[in-house]
Amino acid sequence: WEGELLSEWCMYGRYTQELGVYAKEEAARLRESGQRRSVSDRSRTLDLLEYDKGRCAKCRICTVRCQKFLISRVGEDWIFLILLGLLMALVSWVVDFCIAICLQAQKWMYGGLDSNVFLQYLAWVTYPVVLITFSAGFTQILAPQAVGSGIPEMKTILRGVVLKEYLTFKTFVAKVIGLTCALGSGMPLGKEGPFVHIASLCAALLSKFMSLFGGIYENESRNIEMLAAACAVGVGCCFAAPIGGVLFSIEVTSTFFAVRNYWRGFFAATFSAFIFRVLAVWNRDEETITALFKTRFRLDFPFDLQELPAFAVIGIASGFGGALFVYLNRLIVQFIRKQKAINRFLMKKRLLYPALVTLLVSTLTFPPGFGQFMAGKLTQKESLVTLLDNRTWAKQGIAEEFDYIGQSQAWKHPQVNVFVTLVLFIVMKFWMSALATTIPVPCGAFMPVFVIGAAFGRLVGESMAAWFPDGIHTDGTIYPIVPGGYAVVGAAALSGAVTHTVSTAVIVFELTGQISHILPVMIAVILANAVAQSLQPSLYDSIIRIKKLPYLPELGWGHHEYYNIRVEDIMVRDVRYITLNCTYRDLHNVLLTGHLKTLALVESAESMILLGSIERAQLQSLLSLQLGRPRRLEYIKERATAEKKRLSVVSNPSSDDGSHRASQEVRFQVRGHCRSRIDRMESHPFHLCLMGCNLRKIAPQTTERIAEWEEMQLDEQVNFNNCKIDPAPFQLVERTSLHKTHTIFSLLGLDHAYVTSIGRLIGVVSLKELRKAIEGSVTVKGVKVRPPLASFRDSGTSSSENEATELHKLWDRHKSMSLPREHTPSESDEKSQ
Amino acid sequence: WEGELLSEWCMYGRYTQELGVYAKEEAARLRESGQRRSVSDRSRTLDLLEYDKGRCAKCRICTVRCQKFLISRVGEDWIFLILLGLLMALVSWVVDFCIAICLQAQKWMYGGLDSNVFLQYLAWVTYPVVLITFSAGFTQILAPQAVGSGIPEMKTILRGVVLKEYLTFKTFVAKVIGLTCALGSGMPLGKEGPFVHIASLCAALLSKFMSLFGGIYENESRNIEMLAAACAVGVGCCFAAPIGGVLFSIEVTSTFFAVRNYWRGFFAATFSAFIFRVLAVWNRDEETITALFKTRFRLDFPFDLQELPAFAVIGIASGFGGALFVYLNRLIVQFIRKQKAINRFLMKKRLLYPALVTLLVSTLTFPPGFGQFMAGKLTQKESLVTLLDNRTWAKQGIAEEFDYIGQSQAWKHPQVNVFVTLVLFIVMKFWMSALATTIPVPCGAFMPVFVIGAAFGRLVGESMAAWFPDGIHTDGTIYPIVPGGYAVVGAAALSGAVTHTVSTAVIVFELTGQISHILPVMIAVILANAVAQSLQPSLYDSIIRIKKLPYLPELGWGHHEYYNIRVEDIMVRDVRYITLNCTYRDLHNVLLTGHLKTLALVESAESMILLGSIERAQLQSLLSLQLGRPRRLEYIKERATAEKKRLSVVSNPSSDDGSHRASQEVRFQVRGHCRSRIDRMESHPFHLCLMGCNLRKIAPQTTERIAEWEEMQLDEQVNFNNCKIDPAPFQLVERTSLHKTHTIFSLLGLDHAYVTSIGRLIGVVSLKELRKAIEGSVTVKGVKVRPPLASFRDSGTSSSENEATELHKLWDRHKSMSLPREHTPSESDEKSQ
Repeated sequence: WEGELLSEWCMYGRYTQELGVYAKEEAARLRESGQRRSVSDRSRTLDLLEYDKGRCAKCRICTVRCQKFLISRVGEDWIFLILLGLLMALVSWVVDFCIAICLQAQKWMYGGLDSNVFLQYLAWVTYPVVLITFSAGFTQILAPQAVGSGIPEMKTILRGVVLKEYLTFKTFVAKVIGLTCALGSGMPLGKEGPFVHIASLCAALLSKFMSLFGGIYENESRNIEMLAAACAVGVGCCFAAPIGGVLFSIEVTSTFFAVRNYWRGFFAATFSAFIFRVLAVWNRDEETITALFKTRFRLDFPFDLQELPAFAVIGIASGFGGALFVYLNRLIVQFIRKQKAINRFLMKKRLLYPALVTLLVSTLTFPPGFGQFMAGKLTQKESLVTLLDNRTWAKQGIAEEFDYIGQSQAWKHPQVNVFVTLVLFIVMKFWMSALATTIPVPCGAFMPVFVIGAAFGRLVGESMAAWFPDGIHTDGTIYPIVPGGYAVVGAAALSGAVTHTVSTAVIVFELTGQISHILPVMIAVILANAVAQSLQPSLYDSIIRIKKLPYLPELGWGHHEYYNIRVEDIMVRDVRYITLNCTYRDLHNVLLTGHLKTLALVESAESMILLGSIERAQLQSLLSLQLGRPRRLEYIKERATAEKKRLSVVSNPSSDDGSHRASQEVRFQVRGHCRSRIDRMESHPFHLCLMGCNLRKIAPQTTERIAEWEEMQLDEQVNFNNCKIDPAPFQLVERTSLHKTHTIFSLLGLDHAYVTSIGRLIGVVSLKELRKAIEGSVTVKGVKVRPPLASFRDSGTSSSENEATELHKLWDRHKSMSLPREHTPSESDEKSQ
Repeated sequence: WEGELLSEWCMYGRYTQELGVYAKEEAARLRESGQRRSVSDRSRTLDLLEYDKGRCAKCRICTVRCQKFLISRVGEDWIFLILLGLLMALVSWVVDFCIAICLQAQKWMYGGLDSNVFLQYLAWVTYPVVLITFSAGFTQILAPQAVGSGIPEMKTILRGVVLKEYLTFKTFVAKVIGLTCALGSGMPLGKEGPFVHIASLCAALLSKFMSLFGGIYENESRNIEMLAAACAVGVGCCFAAPIGGVLFSIEVTSTFFAVRNYWRGFFAATFSAFIFRVLAVWNRDEETITALFKTRFRLDFPFDLQELPAFAVIGIASGFGGALFVYLNRLIVQFIRKQKAINRFLMKKRLLYPALVTLLVSTLTFPPGFGQFMAGKLTQKESLVTLLDNRTWAKQGIAEEFDYIGQSQAWKHPQVNVFVTLVLFIVMKFWMSALATTIPVPCGAFMPVFVIGAAFGRLVGESMAAWFPDGIHTDGTIYPIVPGGYAVVGAAALSGAVTHTVSTAVIVFELTGQISHILPVMIAVILANAVAQSLQPSLYDSIIRIKKLPYLPELGWGHHEYYNIRVEDIMVRDVRYITLNCTYRDLHNVLLTGHLKTLALVESAESMILLGSIERAQLQSLLSLQLGRPRRLEYIKERATAEKKRLSVVSNPSSDDGSHRASQEVRFQVRGHCRSRIDRMESHPFHLCLMGCNLRKIAPQTTERIAEWEEMQLDEQVNFNNCKIDPAPFQLVERTSLHKTHTIFSLLGLDHAYVTSIGRLIGVVSLKELRKAIEGSVTVKGVKVRPPLASFRDSGTSSSENEATELHKLWDRHKSMSLPREHTPSESDEKSQ
């Protein structure tokens, strides 16, 4: 339990699929009730109008019509997208502005104290520690969901799972303020992951706000589409890269993408990027709209054909580096989780871990100390600008010849070669970034990785420039090598390898404003992806696995087994089902034995013809209606009345109405309790607890009769009339291939599908089976199907059996923890926890 | 019939959905038989090996193992993609090379004859007429499917419909040679649409070729994924634009896109673009790898913020222009189709239409004639290069000051202003391109539209430059306006408007090698799309409608009705179904009355529980098995034997075997005939024809008995044991919204889905109903749901009722035409037609 608590605040919370399902149900319930209210509100206004036939009735009707027209306009997608883009551009700009101020303040303090090195060190170290600690504490108190990147959660949400608490206003506030402080500290953290989350939060809140005017905002599938567009806006306004933003968000969050959303994303991201850059122009930071990290490489001869092997080397090395980064990041999280002693200590002082990490990192970058060997003086942005510089630092292998102007001076050291500085920078920043991204503050890993990649590219470029001082081109003009171009290639390749995306290439072009290196960049990114994808999951998938979010892994590239494995090989043949003519006792038994969230409804046990599926909760309410307190009370009342009638005849017409109302109230209160008890009942095999707690308040002489009554009730046939049945659950056939099943599951966001044979139910496949089959622990026709590097991949995470039992435990705990919340879904409840 | 024939050669063939289905079935049949053969082949090799235990048996086994290993490698996706990229780069380069030679030859002829204007004119006009006529004739003879762009067909194929004849080797040859000749003529045609088709052809042929080695190439869903990658390769190697190629192909061909294909597309397109450009370097055309149409705009201040309204104007105007282009193109096709007199004349001389159009266009561009006012001397490529030039043509509103060097000289005319030249160029090229793309040769419309857009942008840019000679920027340095930037914006906007894509922006960056104008380009493209999409379908959708390809229209942007219409509003309640215990007579009746390609199988007429669906063809074969010739013959034989036995007892053991073989042969021959007859039987209500033709050869005395026997057979219960039943047809619920239905249909490529209510079949929705509902001719709750500009959109195409009857007619004809082909699917058959 302690480890759990730690993991909750430390970096990652855990979510089981069942929790998501509960959140979904609750969200559906809330939405429904909200809809009903708003409809009744509107109809009331109209009623009032018709009633109030005073002098300005016409005038009012006209107003209402105008209002209606405006509302219908407000419902248009493009208005929503423009508002979203505008809002996100403002947020991005304000955040950037605050970060710049924070960083400037640190520099100012550090510069002002240059008389005393110790005071300088104190100022250099204390400032980030305070900021990070504040960020961690603030986020922890206000909304722990704001911790981390947010892209894994968005990926899960876009797959159809509702993680409700992820899209609230409190999370928004926590994420924005926490992110500003975290980045203001100068730690190697990025803003792009959190911005995807912030944009989604914005979209969700805006959608909620706009639903006050129109009805269309209550549609779930539309909201998901808008969230997809919001992800694009998030990346777009963060880098002023609309195209790259759209593509990156697609690659990172979707498995199947609707091309009509693509349009939405482009529209909103372009508008957002435009406003973001216009704000910079208005603020006199820029003369006109240009790229964020503008480069000035020569256009006529960007690179020679013979330099391509060097670019390919950057790509392959970045691939290994990216995989290593993901592995390192996961290793750190798991190391901290596993060490019981560290755990216990850190848990007591929750803010100690962030403070310690920050202290370590900022001590190492202290410019007069070790920082002088790794350009510690520069902020992330400054180092990127210097790395992309189009001049060569090391001519003839000697650094002397180059006059380091401005920022670039930080890379120069009197004793040490520029190559050593670069290598130290790469190595130190590599583990620092992997460590820093485990701090429980809102932060992304894209930008740090991008900078490391640029440094690596620069290193290769400078080496090439030292090797071939006059360039490689043999005939005619001399075209010297441009190390800045190598930096661009390296940045795209490493960030592509870590995130498993190719659109970092596009982001790089938009960030630098030059596309001349397109082919080297594409080649390096593709090679890096090929290497990294065969070694490790992407950073986001890795986090999804650690957090145990309900997500389906991707199919590997070019594994033919997937076409040969059939559903019949992986399906569970022992399906829990109920029949049309079953009794409440059968229902009860099925609910006690299984843990599936939906149950199949078949015509009869002989025919096994699948009619539909019913959610567990529905069956539980059926059972509680039949056996629950209201009916008990009624029965007792009936018996009492009969008793009374036998004894004396007392009639009071007015009290009859009163008692009826009272009994209704009781019923509403009790039903909730009953449900939660039945829920808990499943975990205890002792199914009489329900009866027991009801019996306490009842006179002992009736106990036997009630037990009798219960037996009678259980033997009755179930009445499915008021039960919500899903009449068309998704069906597969035995011969459906794993590949197709995966496609269908990810296309439709299913979590289970029934396997039928000519209408007869013969099995069920759920996400779990599919995941197992894809991860390679299924045996088909005597052959162990396992992706080539699966063993390496799995080494970090627990095996599937452990996972299952862990899920089981979690599920039990969540049930007892989260169910009471269902009755009081107010925000005060969350605060008190 | 005449009109049909014309349309077939003139521009567009017609395809009904049913035709596609037949093709699919046939393809499946062929594939299956092929598979069986290859399996037996392989097993035979192994058998031989084990049998041949000679001296080098080990050696041979080793060879076989090596071969197996190689084969497993060949199955890898990346090898396929590299081969595809390489092949397409070569094809693209060779085609470009040939086109360049053709164009040079025309210039050489024209230049050599400058003593005599009449001879010059003859040479200028005859050359393209001959080339286009050859192209049209060659394509017509070899493979009429190669006509046109190919993108609409690829869109349909990627949706899951098999247009088999579209991916054959003959089509490949016809397309490549036809395209080279067509573009070599210098007509305003493009190569990008055909290249999408060529790449898909390449992929299909390569896949077929590779399937000789491995088994994985026979998987259908994999082939579709490879086709999607091929489309990206097509665009990528045409423009050396890998990113833009991938995005354009996604936007143009897909509704839902699997992100894993994105990776494949990037990989193949990058490799292809790389090879394509490397070939240019090797051929000494270029010094190193650069963009195709490299621009040299200044980097430090690409444009002023205040120029943005001008860019927005370009966008909006391009939107209207794009819609007009699509409308004009469709108008021309429909005009030619409708005019009976023209039709009859053109039909006789099939190659007259292309020749006439070419004559008209080349006469108007004759440089000493009208061509001098519209830069007629320049080829498409040359005009694009000059339009993207970074110098300003018109300073101070007067053209004099600029020294027109090289190609740009063509835009200068001694009497006429450069603005007039540009306007004339735009207007003339606009209708010429719309006309030229209706010629029945392999050609696309992207490049001509791109050039027109660039000219329009240049016009606006030159006007701005004339208006603000010192630029707009107020303080400090003077930044003159760059008209070339406007040309880039215009090109992207107009091509985006015609194709309804935003990725033209990316293509433009990759083509010019500069990304500095990203925001103006994005804004203009988005505005152009918004305008064009609300006025007209895209060019490709327009062609799909004209060709009546089985494709589902897109949902409009932001129409909320789609969430309110339910399946119950649009479904067909009168479903044709068969029951488990039905007789052959019922089967017969159902087949006679309906035209659906699949029939629902329910448990019984009372319960109506849906068990699955059966294809029409399956039922037909069931019926023919029961009533067909073999059983008749058997019956007759039986009767005869009985008769004979009664008369005499003659036994011959050896002839018994022979007769058995003979009867089998007969059965195989006859079954095909029977099926086609039953097929035809449906169109004639006279269902006794089958019996009639059988009775001819049978002695008249048995006629009555056979009729009796038939009645008996019809009353038997159907035996579904050998029938292929789809046990899980897709099911919807009454409350499913139109939006969701559309999503599911396009996601899964369905063409019909059953509507069930708790297992009971209550209706069916097919593509037709969905299409009708989306196009707005459905009435829901008293409100006519109709997109705002639907009336304008529909004006060109026929109404849905007409369409239905037309389809019906076509269906009848196709059946009688295409079915006999089923028995002789050899290539000689196609040639003879």
